[in-house]
Amino acid sequence: MAETGLFEVMYSAGAIRRLRPDPVPDEVITKVLDAAIRAPSGSNAQSWLFMVVKDAGKRKQLGAVYKKASEILMKLYAGAPRPEHMDEKKYARFMQSVQHLFDHMGDAPVLLVPCLKASMWSGNTNLPADIKARMAGSVRIAGSSIYPAVQNIILACRAFGLGTVLTTIHAFFEEEVRAILNLPPDVQTYALMPIGYPQGHHFPVKRKSVNEVACLDSYGKAWPG
Amino acid sequence: MAETGLFEVMYSAGAIRRLRPDPVPDEVITKVLDAAIRAPSGSNAQSWLFMVVKDAGKRKQLGAVYKKASEILMKLYAGAPRPEHMDEKKYARFMQSVQHLFDHMGDAPVLLVPCLKASMWSGNTNLPADIKARMAGSVRIAGSSIYPAVQNIILACRAFGLGTVLTTIHAFFEEEVRAILNLPPDVQTYALMPIGYPQGHHFPVKRKSVNEVACLDSYGKAWPG
Repeated sequence: MAETGLFEVMYSAGAIRRLRPDPVPDEVITKVLDAAIRAPSGSNAQSWLFMVVKDAGKRKQLGAVYKKASEILMKLYAGAPRPEHMDEKKYARFMQSVQHLFDHMGDAPVLLVPCLKASMWSGNTNLPADIKARMAGSVRIAGSSIYPAVQNIILACRAFGLGTVLTTIHAFFEEEVRAILNLPPDVQTYALMPIGYPQGHHFPVKRKSVNEVACLDSYGKAWPG
Repeated sequence: MAETGLFEVMYSAGAIRRLRPDPVPDEVITKVLDAAIRAPSGSNAQSWLFMVVKDAGKRKQLGAVYKKASEILMKLYAGAPRPEHMDEKKYARFMQSVQHLFDHMGDAPVLLVPCLKASMWSGNTNLPADIKARMAGSVRIAGSSIYPAVQNIILACRAFGLGTVLTTIHAFFEEEVRAILNLPPDVQTYALMPIGYPQGHHFPVKRKSVNEVACLDSYGKAWPG
């Protein structure tokens, strides 16, 4: 059922990895994207590009890339302990759902690939070396111009009764994804999001509590909230 | 005035760079953070850390770092053209507001620094070289585990009548920020967000339209929406 209260939506927009093949109307995707672009972007440059993939052949190709990337992810998982906040049963259920998506990404009726075009500054090659070095050391902030929009996509999908999930491992095979979507060299992909109507229901989002993840003024000093 | 409808909030949560010094109740910050952590994170690891800075001395120090970073940003801007989607008047107003924040970051009653702890995989040093290379080439996706939470912060602030703005240039001086907040080496900062009650009003978010920024199936094929 559709919810439109901000907090109701936020608190029930858990990752949906099992989707029905039923088509999603273009108008709804347009509304989702119109919500996406209300998010901020660095210098308000709005250098985003949203690739909406409906073509069955291209979805299948993207699904194959995702499957291949999942094999790398599984090697990474193999060396990592189960997260403390999930018990064995919860973790098994989580991994089952993750595995389902590994095998069915290409079956989602819509695949959305949020991208960024190269920054307005990339043409400025005339920068002092120390500034270049500081920028090179700050690559991790690039996503600040696209992942806020991705969260708006997640929330808008929830409001429209659609399921989706943020995935990023396709980036291990960026060149292949770029070829499938015919992207020019100055565009980079940041996410691969299956969108469709959920097989099951939306569910409440459970998380570690705020006092476990927030500090006041100095690391180690717990936030009193 | 507070809004709690999802789309009303999204469409009126523009960047607020001028804040009143009035204190923000801790309970409200806790509610904002409780909304933040409903966002997704890679493998649901929730490796986030939210540094809430209220101490006046530390805010002043962070404000000085931001000011210093702004001087680098201005050098970057100097080599860049005005964005096409802003006319001269709009751009001048934007830059004035940006300049106000350069000078007053430390005056916001609360500074929030969303961080990430090193990934659950970083302990796995036993990876094949090709996987290491693919991960090294995918640094830009790191923010996918924190900027969705940042967008929830922006939306929750709006709902509670608070103003904020996502800034990232403090990252040019990451080591200094880490020292101020006493952060351990495995924690990286991703944003610096002033939070407080706005001097002015919230306002509608205007953006380039969806059909300018979305494609169907292949780059260059405009989304029909």
